[in-house]
Amino acid sequence: MNKINHVDFKGKVKMVDVSKKPITYRKAKAHGKIWLKKDTLELIKNFEIKKGDVLSTAKLAGIMAAKRTHELIPLCHPLSITNIEIKFVLEENDNNNSNNDNENENNNRIYNITCISEVKCDGKTGVEMEAMISVSIALLTIYDMCKAVDRDMKIGDIMLIEKSGGKSGYWKRERD
Amino acid sequence: MNKINHVDFKGKVKMVDVSKKPITYRKAKAHGKIWLKKDTLELIKNFEIKKGDVLSTAKLAGIMAAKRTHELIPLCHPLSITNIEIKFVLEENDNNNSNNDNENENNNRIYNITCISEVKCDGKTGVEMEAMISVSIALLTIYDMCKAVDRDMKIGDIMLIEKSGGKSGYWKRERD
Amino acid sequence: MNKINHVDFKGKVKMVDVSKKPITYRKAKAHGKIWLKKDTLELIKNFEIKKGDVLSTAKLAGIMAAKRTHELIPLCHPLSITNIEIKFVLEENDNNNSNNDNENENNNRIYNITCISEVKCDGKTGVEMEAMISVSIALLTIYDMCKAVDRDMKIGDIMLIEKSGGKSGYWKRERD
Amino acid sequence: MNKINHVDFKGKVKMVDVSKKPITYRKAKAHGKIWLKKDTLELIKNFEIKKGDVLSTAKLAGIMAAKRTHELIPLCHPLSITNIEIKFVLEENDNNNSNNDNENENNNRIYNITCISEVKCDGKTGVEMEAMISVSIALLTIYDMCKAVDRDMKIGDIMLIEKSGGKSGYWKRERD
Amino acid sequence: MNKINHVDFKGKVKMVDVSKKPITYRKAKAHGKIWLKKDTLELIKNFEIKKGDVLSTAKLAGIMAAKRTHELIPLCHPLSITNIEIKFVLEENDNNNSNNDNENENNNRIYNITCISEVKCDGKTGVEMEAMISVSIALLTIYDMCKAVDRDMKIGDIMLIEKSGGKSGYWKRERD
Amino acid sequence: MNKINHVDFKGKVKMVDVSKKPITYRKAKAHGKIWLKKDTLELIKNFEIKKGDVLSTAKLAGIMAAKRTHELIPLCHPLSITNIEIKFVLEENDNNNSNNDNENENNNRIYNITCISEVKCDGKTGVEMEAMISVSIALLTIYDMCKAVDRDMKIGDIMLIEKSGGKSGYWKRERD
Repeated sequence: MNKINHVDFKGKVKMVDVSKKPITYRKAKAHGKIWLKKDTLELIKNFEIKKGDVLSTAKLAGIMAAKRTHELIPLCHPLSITNIEIKFVLEENDNNNSNNDNENENNNRIYNITCISEVKCDGKTGVEMEAMISVSIALLTIYDMCKAVDRDMKIGDIMLIEKSGGKSGYWKRERD
Repeated sequence: MNKINHVDFKGKVKMVDVSKKPITYRKAKAHGKIWLKKDTLELIKNFEIKKGDVLSTAKLAGIMAAKRTHELIPLCHPLSITNIEIKFVLEENDNNNSNNDNENENNNRIYNITCISEVKCDGKTGVEMEAMISVSIALLTIYDMCKAVDRDMKIGDIMLIEKSGGKSGYWKRERD
Repeated sequence: MNKINHVDFKGKVKMVDVSKKPITYRKAKAHGKIWLKKDTLELIKNFEIKKGDVLSTAKLAGIMAAKRTHELIPLCHPLSITNIEIKFVLEENDNNNSNNDNENENNNRIYNITCISEVKCDGKTGVEMEAMISVSIALLTIYDMCKAVDRDMKIGDIMLIEKSGGKSGYWKRERD
Repeated sequence: MNKINHVDFKGKVKMVDVSKKPITYRKAKAHGKIWLKKDTLELIKNFEIKKGDVLSTAKLAGIMAAKRTHELIPLCHPLSITNIEIKFVLEENDNNNSNNDNENENNNRIYNITCISEVKCDGKTGVEMEAMISVSIALLTIYDMCKAVDRDMKIGDIMLIEKSGGKSGYWKRERD
Repeated sequence: MNKINHVDFKGKVKMVDVSKKPITYRKAKAHGKIWLKKDTLELIKNFEIKKGDVLSTAKLAGIMAAKRTHELIPLCHPLSITNIEIKFVLEENDNNNSNNDNENENNNRIYNITCISEVKCDGKTGVEMEAMISVSIALLTIYDMCKAVDRDMKIGDIMLIEKSGGKSGYWKRERD
Repeated sequence: MNKINHVDFKGKVKMVDVSKKPITYRKAKAHGKIWLKKDTLELIKNFEIKKGDVLSTAKLAGIMAAKRTHELIPLCHPLSITNIEIKFVLEENDNNNSNNDNENENNNRIYNITCISEVKCDGKTGVEMEAMISVSIALLTIYDMCKAVDRDMKIGDIMLIEKSGGKSGYWKRERD
């Protein structure tokens, strides 16, 4: 009988064993952005996107996806989530030098929606991925609902902002 | 009003009520095997199966399926899994009397991969099914990835090896 | 940068934050009914529906759906369910004034099956929705299995009957 | 070797084999109701339920559940749904003899929301269950979002209204 | 910019691209076994297992799991399944030389249940995995329901028996 | 009876009805990036991340998530995906003026992994969201596997690159 060691080495995939960790109160906050055309933002604000109320739908999609994080991210543990809170901020920059408005829009992507998600649980491991997933799926839902009028939208700046609980305790992002 | 009792008798299906049980630390270990052609084993070892790295994929499939045990097995409870660890051992028996190698392969199925899975949780009931499911899905994934070259593969010897925690405590398999 | 406040107001969707609540033992009981033709009820009782044993299948569907409540109801929390118990009562009213049996059946819907579900968990929030979901899916499964012979079946009277645990404690339905 | 026939007879459960059926364009429409207190209806209308916009959330929950019908109803086939459309109608009956308004509310359940769902697909079997599921989950979502203020809500009148396509062709409900 | 080629080589994982294949009628049949104690088999036959009717539950679990094959096996395609049929055969061997019955039971595992599953679809790829999954989950469900009385049960002989449709056409297993 | 029109207007959420569209061959390609520390990239390349082979796992997660797009994005249709292909490109820029390597890493985020996904189907609507989802989940999986050593990773540049099929035909991104 031969164990093929290089498989065990190269192909290893493993969960982090959290069985001996204490249950602590945990929070994680993430955010992300979607850049879009000025017109698209107007349609969202005025509830005129054909598929319906974009931000409510995106919020629900983000909440529901967070609950399924352990199904989507292969090595995540199932967690007893106690809250998921998602907010949107719309950046419009209408005060920009308005003479080259259109150009700005195309080049600098000044119109965007920021999605911020905070997730809480009592668990042996943190909810960072739940926060990251909910932001991503919320933004992707905005993309889906608006893609008929704006295929060029771009999603980015998805990052962890803050987390607390567990052995490593409080952490706050310090760079961009 | 008549209750039809024979329905309640014959057709009864019920979960085990674990609401009054204490939460204890639980472990379960299961294993299983897939028998395959010598050539198939070689392709797996050399990362030459067209669909990709077979054992890493099987391991991930097993881990992900364990997390969904309560969705697949009707009467299982959802559990807070804290770890799933899957290992593979490849049995090659190259030292066999090599003159009748091919014959052995076909008749005795001496080439095989053993999958061993250990699952942990803190819960009111055990993770035996999670361990059994992860072994089965990992082996079925091997079948899926190799079936283009070896439809005759056979899966078997799926059994519980060991479990601990809960009222019944430690148990170790004593027979084959 | 402008936050559009009316989106935050009208389009708000939020989970109830249960992170600070204590874990308590919780129970919820719900029930519902499906009205059907006398003949359909007979077929169910005699295991003669083509798709198979209707009540066992409905029971399993109800149990399995309860475990997925947090996937189906957008703002529900995932919960550690410890038991789901589903019962059926068949109302036949054979003692009715039998001379106008057929008429009654069509007009008054006196033949029906009641589904009662009780769900338990230890959690920060209750299992009311789990009980309601399991009743609904169990009844819908009866509909599915019998619809080839009785498309007119009607599902109703789905309601919470009782719940206990949590801050609001024991509650029992007092009206119809 | 003995086959135990009574298991095969009593315990039989089987899908309908649709493999030989042609793919046709299919539609199904179902509806259902939730009865609630006058105050609850007011809160829903004025977007003042704490959990957020009730009807939009219910609509989304209904749409998403319809897509998972084959996961929830054991013997349903997976289908390529091409549309799910959900509408709500709010019955308020404000013109009732207003002097005994409160009494009516409690006794006759005159305040309610009707949910109507129409589902379409091209398939070998119909989308009746998809329509029924989406109505049920939409109404259950209303229950979930409002249960903090109105535990007594009742769901009922869930029924198929119309369906077309397939061998049995067009069918319209003729009774209540 | 450097592409790291050894990742692309060793770590490759890929679906089979079936986009250019024609849709054909496909069938696959698989089977598997669970060996158990004589007493366990008796309990199953007599509907005396505490969790309920074992074979009906196992059948449903197998059917429901087949529909989720593409979620469980990473590289499987979603398929429009048109039928899943699961049968059980109970081997009892009561005619054995009855004087050493007990010994046989432990050593030779003569008591077992065979599960046979046949799956059909119209698709660009076959339903082999659906058949294999349904057999495996059905047998695992038997294990789950009986494990309180018989932890030593063993699952095996899971194999593809027959398949048809697609470019490779009809295939029938010729070896054990 | 009063229909509340402003709910129907503001709160409308609707799928696009694709029932009358023809089935066409469709493709969509999306990409995205994760920026990380130089050291993290080295660990990934050398298979030294504790959780295992990062890119294979990310690829599988992306493939599996694409198959569940219609569960995650509320208004997406279920589609018969025929292929999902995910590739990674690692940008290392080792030829940079190496004296200020560390500074560059922190300020300009020159180290990154690009994920490119192409999805195919025959359907009545396109697979743009499937491609976008698979990129996002693949990148989030990289984040999950490396977050123990690099919490500052940032995900972005998620965008559709190309799509074909359907009424709108071929489209290629022309801007950044």
